[in-house]
Amino acid sequence: MSRILRLNMADRSFRWEEVKPEWQGLGGRALTSRIIREEVPPTCHPLSGDNKLVVAPGLLTGAPAANAGRISVGGKSPLTGGIKESNSGGLVSIKLARLGVKAVVVEGRPQDEAFSLVRITKDGVEFLPGDDYAGLGNYDTMARLWERFGKGVGVMSIGQAGEKRLAGASIHFSDPAGRPGRAAGRGGLGALMGSKKLKALVVDDTGTDPIRLADPEKFKTAARKWAKYLMDHPVSGQALPAYGTAVLINIVNEAGALPTKNFREGRFEFAEDISGEHMAELIKARGGKTKEGCHPGCVIQCSQTYHDKEGKYLTSGFEYETIWALGANTLIRHLDEIAIIDRLCDDYGLDTIEMGCALGVLMEGGVIPWGSGPAAIEMVRKVATDDPWGRIIGNGAAFTGQALGVDRVPVVKRQGLPAYDPRAEKGVGLTYATSPMGADHTAGYGVAVNILGCAGGGNPLKKEGNIELSRNLQIATAAIDSTGLCLFVAFAVLDNPDALQCIIDMINARYGLSLTGDDVRYGLSLTGDDVTALGSQVLRDERSFNRDAGFTLAQDRLPGFFKEILKPHNVTWDFTDEEVDQVLSGF
Amino acid sequence: MSRILRLNMADRSFRWEEVKPEWQGLGGRALTSRIIREEVPPTCHPLSGDNKLVVAPGLLTGAPAANAGRISVGGKSPLTGGIKESNSGGLVSIKLARLGVKAVVVEGRPQDEAFSLVRITKDGVEFLPGDDYAGLGNYDTMARLWERFGKGVGVMSIGQAGEKRLAGASIHFSDPAGRPGRAAGRGGLGALMGSKKLKALVVDDTGTDPIRLADPEKFKTAARKWAKYLMDHPVSGQALPAYGTAVLINIVNEAGALPTKNFREGRFEFAEDISGEHMAELIKARGGKTKEGCHPGCVIQCSQTYHDKEGKYLTSGFEYETIWALGANTLIRHLDEIAIIDRLCDDYGLDTIEMGCALGVLMEGGVIPWGSGPAAIEMVRKVATDDPWGRIIGNGAAFTGQALGVDRVPVVKRQGLPAYDPRAEKGVGLTYATSPMGADHTAGYGVAVNILGCAGGGNPLKKEGNIELSRNLQIATAAIDSTGLCLFVAFAVLDNPDALQCIIDMINARYGLSLTGDDVRYGLSLTGDDVTALGSQVLRDERSFNRDAGFTLAQDRLPGFFKEILKPHNVTWDFTDEEVDQVLSGF
Repeated sequence: MSRILRLNMADRSFRWEEVKPEWQGLGGRALTSRIIREEVPPTCHPLSGDNKLVVAPGLLTGAPAANAGRISVGGKSPLTGGIKESNSGGLVSIKLARLGVKAVVVEGRPQDEAFSLVRITKDGVEFLPGDDYAGLGNYDTMARLWERFGKGVGVMSIGQAGEKRLAGASIHFSDPAGRPGRAAGRGGLGALMGSKKLKALVVDDTGTDPIRLADPEKFKTAARKWAKYLMDHPVSGQALPAYGTAVLINIVNEAGALPTKNFREGRFEFAEDISGEHMAELIKARGGKTKEGCHPGCVIQCSQTYHDKEGKYLTSGFEYETIWALGANTLIRHLDEIAIIDRLCDDYGLDTIEMGCALGVLMEGGVIPWGSGPAAIEMVRKVATDDPWGRIIGNGAAFTGQALGVDRVPVVKRQGLPAYDPRAEKGVGLTYATSPMGADHTAGYGVAVNILGCAGGGNPLKKEGNIELSRNLQIATAAIDSTGLCLFVAFAVLDNPDALQCIIDMINARYGLSLTGDDVRYGLSLTGDDVTALGSQVLRDERSFNRDAGFTLAQDRLPGFFKEILKPHNVTWDFTDEEVDQVLSGF
Repeated sequence: MSRILRLNMADRSFRWEEVKPEWQGLGGRALTSRIIREEVPPTCHPLSGDNKLVVAPGLLTGAPAANAGRISVGGKSPLTGGIKESNSGGLVSIKLARLGVKAVVVEGRPQDEAFSLVRITKDGVEFLPGDDYAGLGNYDTMARLWERFGKGVGVMSIGQAGEKRLAGASIHFSDPAGRPGRAAGRGGLGALMGSKKLKALVVDDTGTDPIRLADPEKFKTAARKWAKYLMDHPVSGQALPAYGTAVLINIVNEAGALPTKNFREGRFEFAEDISGEHMAELIKARGGKTKEGCHPGCVIQCSQTYHDKEGKYLTSGFEYETIWALGANTLIRHLDEIAIIDRLCDDYGLDTIEMGCALGVLMEGGVIPWGSGPAAIEMVRKVATDDPWGRIIGNGAAFTGQALGVDRVPVVKRQGLPAYDPRAEKGVGLTYATSPMGADHTAGYGVAVNILGCAGGGNPLKKEGNIELSRNLQIATAAIDSTGLCLFVAFAVLDNPDALQCIIDMINARYGLSLTGDDVRYGLSLTGDDVTALGSQVLRDERSFNRDAGFTLAQDRLPGFFKEILKPHNVTWDFTDEEVDQVLSGF
């Protein structure tokens, strides 16, 4: 039976707790958001001892299902002030699941300034001094922890940004090669972990047994079909393994939705230079790897190892969002410069989307020139130093905007906008506006339908259909985020009516349940079944937390400058407030 | 007849407008808040062209009434994100009133980066290039404008902080000696003026006639009694002229409510060193002046000229709040060091309360040592340079807290707390929590009753009576802020039942009206008459703006750390949320 592990950082003690019956059916995001809703005072300071950091594998994590190794990290966000779930791959999730840990709840805050490590094995939990690792980046931290505790242990750690409690700080998870390329990037949860003085969590599942399935045969049948569906879809089976998520650069640029120069235009002149196709060429020429999974059991393999000109390892997990944020958004056109910043962000523990938005605002304010990779690299390096510029950009785009008195700041709920201009991809634009997470493409990825043509396609430039699209995808995503499945399973789920049934069959076979399920494809009803009820409940938990934290519909808005016309399609953000409010009204 | 002057900074044009009938009875805060409520989109970015800066003399300003020369400045606050009225003395208010200007509304924003001056005389309005003054502090700006346009003209200007659009930036008003010691300090309205690229407004009333009174005899009778009541009260007639507002240092310290070391204790060991009594000694010994008025017609004369050791002018308008913020709050105990920072704040255009709170947070974060005047001075000097630390502290305490990852940050609605610990002066504590302005002692000054003993006195340490006290004072203050009267008339009004009638008689005689009035003293009913109806209406305007800007009751809260026990009285912030909400519930 799984249990909850509570770490009390105030006195460096721990306690195991049985899972309440009401929490039994929850996992991942559903569980982190529920625990925060129930236990964190909504108006508390995010860095105070009253906040909690909750880490939870998904419902399917640890079972032999393809792409089920994601982890949810939650808390009151130091960036937005609202509730946050941030999702990552890496090794930790599966190991926690195998150790029978349904969630780790990190509570309280020490009086002293000493950092701790916490190590979880099948023999127990131990607090260890962490000051030897303080000041180290995630690369060195993970390397030393592998050296000390064994190659292959799962590590969740923060870099210098989290130690400094900067609101752009991320939490990193070791990948199968022991590198920190995977992150719970968004919402500044690294700062929350830093406020707890927890440098790293080390998770070692050595000696554990495989997870017991309620109905192994039924599980195996469903899991086999499931893997096949993922492989059969052209996006998850071909495009992502070939070029990584950066395959989207050319596609979104072509769609006129690639935000360029701090959201001034929808096309970047040098998109080709930073495209996934170009990246794959460079990787091959330099001896890197174009295909890698972020966790065992991944059949999509959208990650990669990117080498520098000398053929030396530079970075991994080099994502579309990162390349856009640090590239088209800032007019930096050299992939190697972008890769260096990505590497620094992984090392210091910084959200690359937030950093790209912050650098764009810094350029907007004239502090560094547009398009200058070297200037941007120098700025990001300051985050690991005592230089106050590091404290400014490390706190994100909204903060940088206030520092400079710049009002062209692409944020919702103080979180930087991701890589799709909301005027030219209105489905995801509505998600940016209304998600309880702040601007977040993963919370309801309209792009899959409107630009990638899943579920029959939609129109990214027109209002029609996008209110329902964003709503339905937000509900479905909240459910998927609770399973531990990677969001990239959505392409198959949107296009194949049997895929959702596979997920439900796997959950039922894992736990001995009998959940039902509708088709979650775009346009179809999403009410009345267990899966959508779960997704809706997650959103209700999150929105009620935000309401009590002081959020209203007035925060469900895009910045005013999106009333400007966006080239090349000459589109604008033309939703009324009332239309925006329809997306999640009644929740 | 008075008119509204609209300045459109987008094309540097102006336009005179008749006063709408609904605005006729409004002045000062009532008018600035109404115009903002009606014309500024609540969710706009405070530095965008959609925000407006509104400047309005009070209803009695310009008429021969004692202490009626205050001015209200309003806008959507760059600091709080809510509505703001900030109030100042100086020369501008009376001159605007004599020129028949009921309000100046500064709108739009230029496309270019050039600063402007705007000059208002009886012959008209002119836009002049302002770039020669850009980069200058308020001292030089005002000196040069007096040299150019004549000694004695009214100047409203911003320093480097406002030019940089920092959220701690104030707007300064020339005093009778042409110095910038008077400020609309709070809420970052200097940043709003800076975003409009308006460096200074020059107001010259040469050649105007005295204001016409509807009933000169009745006015004269009331005004004579009014001046006498102010002079007869021990606070406004004796304490304030003798020692300035700094007379409060010893009094509030004695009451155990002088926030010390970032609100850790209620008494400062070295209070005597920074007291008004000690200041008066130094001023006399060094040849300064202990008594000055901030505007013609002031009979209280709480201002002063403070010289340095060499007998050279150092600063003026050296207030209790300033001395506390930069003194007890930071443990700086040398009045000369505090005076240097006050001078820098006046020159750069920075709110001294906000800066004191920000410096306290900077010390909390270990950036500079507690109690170090030289280190604090060096930090404040950075605001006028390109040093990013200047951008951090210049944006205020909440911003500095986020930069440093410090959660002990004394703010409400992101505005720094003034000079009375809310645990040991619960009346003003409730005002901090619930005022639409953010933490603001002037919005409902419970201190007058609870500590200074006006209106029969109250208990600052207990909850009893303080909900009604804060509510009644907030209503009464909103009305007083609309008259142009200095808030220090409140002592006489609280203790003398005839004083309020004097105000009403003066307004009636000025405009030919027949307003009524109740006794606004503590504990008495404040409903049903014109004066309290006006005050209530102002608060309703302000709270409805904030509501539409996204504020809820969750923002009407003190920071969590006030649950700590405060010495010497061992008191805590023990109001429930429900009790706090009673203060202005139903508004």
